[in-house]
Amino acid sequence: MFKKNKNNIRIGELETPHGIIKTPFFMPIATKGAVKTISTRDLESLGAQILLSNTYHLMLRPGEELIKQAGGLHKFMNWNKPILTDSGGYQVFSLCKMRELDSEGVAFQSPIDGAKHLLTPERAIQIQLDLGSDIVMVLDECTPYPCEKDYAEKSLELTTDWAKRCKKYFDENNDKGTNPRAKLFGIVQGSVYPDLRKKSLEQLLEIGFDGYAVGGFSVGEPREKTYEILKDLMPLMPDDKPRYFMGAGQPEEIVQYVKLGFDMFDCVLPTRNARHGTLYVWAGDDLDKDFYKKIIITNEQYREDFEPIDSNCTCEACQNYSKAYLRHLFMAEEPLAHRLATLHNLRFYLDLMAKLRK
Amino acid sequence: MFKKNKNNIRIGELETPHGIIKTPFFMPIATKGAVKTISTRDLESLGAQILLSNTYHLMLRPGEELIKQAGGLHKFMNWNKPILTDSGGYQVFSLCKMRELDSEGVAFQSPIDGAKHLLTPERAIQIQLDLGSDIVMVLDECTPYPCEKDYAEKSLELTTDWAKRCKKYFDENNDKGTNPRAKLFGIVQGSVYPDLRKKSLEQLLEIGFDGYAVGGFSVGEPREKTYEILKDLMPLMPDDKPRYFMGAGQPEEIVQYVKLGFDMFDCVLPTRNARHGTLYVWAGDDLDKDFYKKIIITNEQYREDFEPIDSNCTCEACQNYSKAYLRHLFMAEEPLAHRLATLHNLRFYLDLMAKLRK
Repeated sequence: MFKKNKNNIRIGELETPHGIIKTPFFMPIATKGAVKTISTRDLESLGAQILLSNTYHLMLRPGEELIKQAGGLHKFMNWNKPILTDSGGYQVFSLCKMRELDSEGVAFQSPIDGAKHLLTPERAIQIQLDLGSDIVMVLDECTPYPCEKDYAEKSLELTTDWAKRCKKYFDENNDKGTNPRAKLFGIVQGSVYPDLRKKSLEQLLEIGFDGYAVGGFSVGEPREKTYEILKDLMPLMPDDKPRYFMGAGQPEEIVQYVKLGFDMFDCVLPTRNARHGTLYVWAGDDLDKDFYKKIIITNEQYREDFEPIDSNCTCEACQNYSKAYLRHLFMAEEPLAHRLATLHNLRFYLDLMAKLRK
Repeated sequence: MFKKNKNNIRIGELETPHGIIKTPFFMPIATKGAVKTISTRDLESLGAQILLSNTYHLMLRPGEELIKQAGGLHKFMNWNKPILTDSGGYQVFSLCKMRELDSEGVAFQSPIDGAKHLLTPERAIQIQLDLGSDIVMVLDECTPYPCEKDYAEKSLELTTDWAKRCKKYFDENNDKGTNPRAKLFGIVQGSVYPDLRKKSLEQLLEIGFDGYAVGGFSVGEPREKTYEILKDLMPLMPDDKPRYFMGAGQPEEIVQYVKLGFDMFDCVLPTRNARHGTLYVWAGDDLDKDFYKKIIITNEQYREDFEPIDSNCTCEACQNYSKAYLRHLFMAEEPLAHRLATLHNLRFYLDLMAKLRK
């Protein structure tokens, strides 16, 4: 299923009910059932293989019942390729001020209408099955950084217990869901403690999942720490299962983690940066050093720059418009600015993954 | 150049340096050099024949010098079909609080940076020639509604004097502009006073323009009043010159004015309404009555409506998404909502014009 290419990079294929995805791959983020400013038709043109959607956002609005009624998220948003859904845990912990955590689950109030919700492992899976996700993620507690070891240890106990409950509920209900034969992924936690990370992975392996994600990084800890921990953890990962680094990252991080043996990535950076006028531009072919730069298009230096962002780029922005025009759109707060920049940055990230797969 | 079709509608062709436009036509509004949420590639796919851009907005930001340096507005925004530019007068009068009007021109402060500007007839033409507009509009004073006859009369004197100065400056400088062989249109003013309107047109005819616009309507006066005045004015319009009703309007108004003999229209309604979730839907073939309805997509009634906005419509929204999905995008404040709605409403307006031309 996975083999090393001549650059010693793990390449392979991941089968899902909505088709095969070539690994390693990047998932554009369709938080609320749409990538910001971009349609599913655009995403097909860009060659995106899979999207990531957020359980937390969709359960609150429009609600998973409505999406189930529409025939599932694929039909609702008209996207016929795979979708991965997160479990909602990360958002509950990072976005909700009013929440109470116990072994049963996490209770929280909707910031939209104040309604009370209880997200349990079972409910997290039920929602994702109703949405018809292709890759379902277990509910976990994503520990903050810094995190005392005592807390990390206790949290890991909960996370492992929840992983078991998720697996049980998933196994009992997957074939009754909107999208039978969905896959279930476990999530390794344990903060920055190598022994806890190892323990977490071992416990998940014992439960048995279709793929293994690493969560709880990219939350403010030093990059070197993450790298060290993962370097030691990777040999314990089964070779025949996909490995997902959650929430990363900058292009050079993705390269680094692909080289460590990760297959799957998601990150808001290309789309969020685009909306703030930060654009990724290729600067070289050697993915080991300085292969790109970031430009801030609103800078005065681009005022009279009538060249495209990147003359080799095939995105709609680079094929049609100059930096001066794009800068003008940003300065004038024209909504087209966000769209063109998003198309460009996603093109960059998807091209990066294609280069890695080559 | 213009002839009546079997439905007694004036159809014809308008030649410009950037190609021939079939009349009657509607101009999507690219205020600051972009139609909101929509690229020029999108506008080509939609079959838009011409765009309207705003002199006032572009002179303030990014400034006509930059656009001239880019090779003109067509190159700057990558649109190779015709562009009409307004003169900036309407925006100075409606958007600027700090302004002083005298016979020389209108002085105002930029709301962006407080810089002082003087818009004279000569300057309004110079900017439009620098932008490289295909259809240049004279600087006029757009009277408000209601407007005392005394004021309307005095204002008309100024407008006619400015029209003469515009024509003189245009004739002396057009061939030195970014887009030689541009056309210059006069603008009939005179508020709601039939004799002033008639006088205005006669004075403009004496000066001689490539086309005649009617301005100062759609500013709050009763529709019936506008219609009455225009019905009497139309026979005085030369048959061989294009006629432009500025700033209208709702679909039934456009039908009405096309039947009166107008050839050209512009309006923010389809694009602005789109961004507020108001969508135009065909309801019948008879353009004389109830041929469309407006739906407010955020209404609860569309929550579970999994049908497209209009199953006969060829726009990206109708071809791919349901009303329920579109409603969700609006409720969740997803920027894609504005784009899909804009594509739909422009499709409606452009289809309406195509039906009128048939």
